[in-house]
Amino acid sequence: MRATILTVGTEILFGQIVNTNTVFLSRELNAMGFDVMYHHTVGDNAGRLEEIINKSFDECDLIVTTGGLGPTEDDLTKETIAIAMHDELERHEESLKALLAYAERRNWKMTENNYKQVMMPTRATVFSNPEGTAPGFALTEERDGVTKIIISMPGPPREMKPMWENHAVPYLLKLQDSVISYKIIRTFGLGESAMETVLLPLIDAQTDPTIATYAKEGECSLRIASKRKTKEEADAAITEMLEKIKSYIGDYIYSEDNFDMNEVVGRLLLEKNLSISACESCTGGLFSEMLIKVSGISQVFDRGLVTYSNKAKMEELGVKEETLKTYSAESKEVALEMVKGLYEKTGSNICVSSTGVAGPGEFNGIPAGDMWIGISVNGDARVISISTGRDMREWNRLYCALNMFNEIRKICLDLD
Amino acid sequence: MRATILTVGTEILFGQIVNTNTVFLSRELNAMGFDVMYHHTVGDNAGRLEEIINKSFDECDLIVTTGGLGPTEDDLTKETIAIAMHDELERHEESLKALLAYAERRNWKMTENNYKQVMMPTRATVFSNPEGTAPGFALTEERDGVTKIIISMPGPPREMKPMWENHAVPYLLKLQDSVISYKIIRTFGLGESAMETVLLPLIDAQTDPTIATYAKEGECSLRIASKRKTKEEADAAITEMLEKIKSYIGDYIYSEDNFDMNEVVGRLLLEKNLSISACESCTGGLFSEMLIKVSGISQVFDRGLVTYSNKAKMEELGVKEETLKTYSAESKEVALEMVKGLYEKTGSNICVSSTGVAGPGEFNGIPAGDMWIGISVNGDARVISISTGRDMREWNRLYCALNMFNEIRKICLDLD
Repeated sequence: MRATILTVGTEILFGQIVNTNTVFLSRELNAMGFDVMYHHTVGDNAGRLEEIINKSFDECDLIVTTGGLGPTEDDLTKETIAIAMHDELERHEESLKALLAYAERRNWKMTENNYKQVMMPTRATVFSNPEGTAPGFALTEERDGVTKIIISMPGPPREMKPMWENHAVPYLLKLQDSVISYKIIRTFGLGESAMETVLLPLIDAQTDPTIATYAKEGECSLRIASKRKTKEEADAAITEMLEKIKSYIGDYIYSEDNFDMNEVVGRLLLEKNLSISACESCTGGLFSEMLIKVSGISQVFDRGLVTYSNKAKMEELGVKEETLKTYSAESKEVALEMVKGLYEKTGSNICVSSTGVAGPGEFNGIPAGDMWIGISVNGDARVISISTGRDMREWNRLYCALNMFNEIRKICLDLD
Repeated sequence: MRATILTVGTEILFGQIVNTNTVFLSRELNAMGFDVMYHHTVGDNAGRLEEIINKSFDECDLIVTTGGLGPTEDDLTKETIAIAMHDELERHEESLKALLAYAERRNWKMTENNYKQVMMPTRATVFSNPEGTAPGFALTEERDGVTKIIISMPGPPREMKPMWENHAVPYLLKLQDSVISYKIIRTFGLGESAMETVLLPLIDAQTDPTIATYAKEGECSLRIASKRKTKEEADAAITEMLEKIKSYIGDYIYSEDNFDMNEVVGRLLLEKNLSISACESCTGGLFSEMLIKVSGISQVFDRGLVTYSNKAKMEELGVKEETLKTYSAESKEVALEMVKGLYEKTGSNICVSSTGVAGPGEFNGIPAGDMWIGISVNGDARVISISTGRDMREWNRLYCALNMFNEIRKICLDLD
């Protein structure tokens, strides 16, 4: 089935907002087997909106809209859809009740224009919105013997995404008479084109499940999707495909459930009750900052030191002045002394250090992207060298921090 | 003049890429006085592409396209535009020379399909692309006595943005017979709606310069744009408007040149040669991580400590166990002891600390968003309380870090 994604909102045409809804919906629709033919964005203008709806239905059977469901005069998505689909609006009592309860919970006074938000097309299947004041809906109409569907949702991603998952997806699946299931696998250490090359035999042979790769800063995701009669069948097909994929690139997979690297490592540390401390030079606090995003991490994270100056490296970690002079602060020798000093100071089961040249430009003859990671496991210390060959400061720092996490992940798995 | 932005690329319809070009071009076109009516995205399909070009010219006089200029069979933007605009392609010798030089510099072999990239519409004004292999172009055609313009550029932002600035903007300005100038002002501490309310007299009266506000995580930007006969006139009008704005919200402005907060503060510290150290609990390294993004900051940044555990707070900073027990780690008393301990340890001119509850949920009866910042200026320490009232962990942490920077900014300005 062919689909169009229609974003409504003048603020998008002004460039005030990045349209992330379209990315989300494109992925979802493609994974469900829809062919997304167009993305359109129009302002809050009834004439243009109606024209684009009718035009889209010439070629597509599904339109998914976001935005323009607010309480103000500008917001006319719903009114225009009702006209285009030959329906009318009436007050939706259930939505009104929900809106009143929402207002009471938040202790705010309803204004007259809030009532506009619970006016719904009479034939609509209404999607409740516990995250906000605007319900969404699905509305169908027969055109030349073909069922045309509009799904209309609010613009804020915080409201749109749960509505999509809890209402729109089940609604579409019921129409489709089949079930889509998918799994996102996260890998580290293998680029997207390298991964595609390795997996080519699987990708070329794919019909169902389908495999798609997505590159993301310094790492790569794989999406395995299957469309079958039942969820059990789809899940079984995905599991089978996952096993095949693992036989090719198993060593690079760090999550089979779409968790971020810091989340995976944080949970491993908590699970195994391993205390951790970090001292950072080139990553400058990024490792610590990512680690504390993990809920409950305070149980095992002792401390992080951003020893940016030589003075701090010496005072905090006992790095020797001679080592700094002989090898420079950006060296494997200093990475090692840093992590040894950190272990002496904290006694943490796992200690990690970073130093090197993030860029821009080389430093003391060391090219940008040459970095070192010190790792200490219960006092047993060693150094890992990284060389990205890229003069991209932010990217190098992130890549170094991800490597720190990945090394700790491997250690945690070995410490069984 | 009305404009449409047309993005070409199947990968966008798959949701594999966030379409940031559209945001960039929308802002640019609006600032230049164009009315952006539509964003469209289509796949690499000649029929649909031609139809949308013709349809867009019904209502608009300018179409800006990105994408589909690559060397492969898929890429047919140029071919389709030539057909729609009743032109033909021919080899563009100057672009061929540039391409050969580009290949030589990078030491790669030209393939046959690379030559496709230097085929250009015969009537086109060609835009060179020093960042890549695909030149862009502008092409015009009279339709019903009106000049219709297509500007076509490659998809990668790294290639598109300099081409836009160096070729497309001058091309459009020459047509417009006027000059646009603009300035972006950054503010902190005033929400978007509060700012609009305060500036309402100016915004309501605006014709030229125009004023637009943009909310960004925890802060707010203002764009002042003017369109005049000469750049001098436009700049003078902007300066005059800026003075008016400053009379309303001068205290909230931290940059008149669109610099980020960390950049502004880092430069102030470097300029005044003030050493700085940080110890972070609730911000967990975010402050240090933002500070080291400033190039050259190692000259003044001594160290950062992420004292996440009570043990680390006591050992690293001499926070008293009694204080932790009596007031809890999330308290103004601990923020103060942290920053005092940091000054004793480092002697940095400016020391800063953070502690508090970022969320999710309250902790020990302290609501999420209640946080404290300790500041020490040459040993003279005090505490600032923050209460966001929002249970949003990442947002609270960022807002706290931005407040740390903003306090330091005010101190630097006072230390004249």
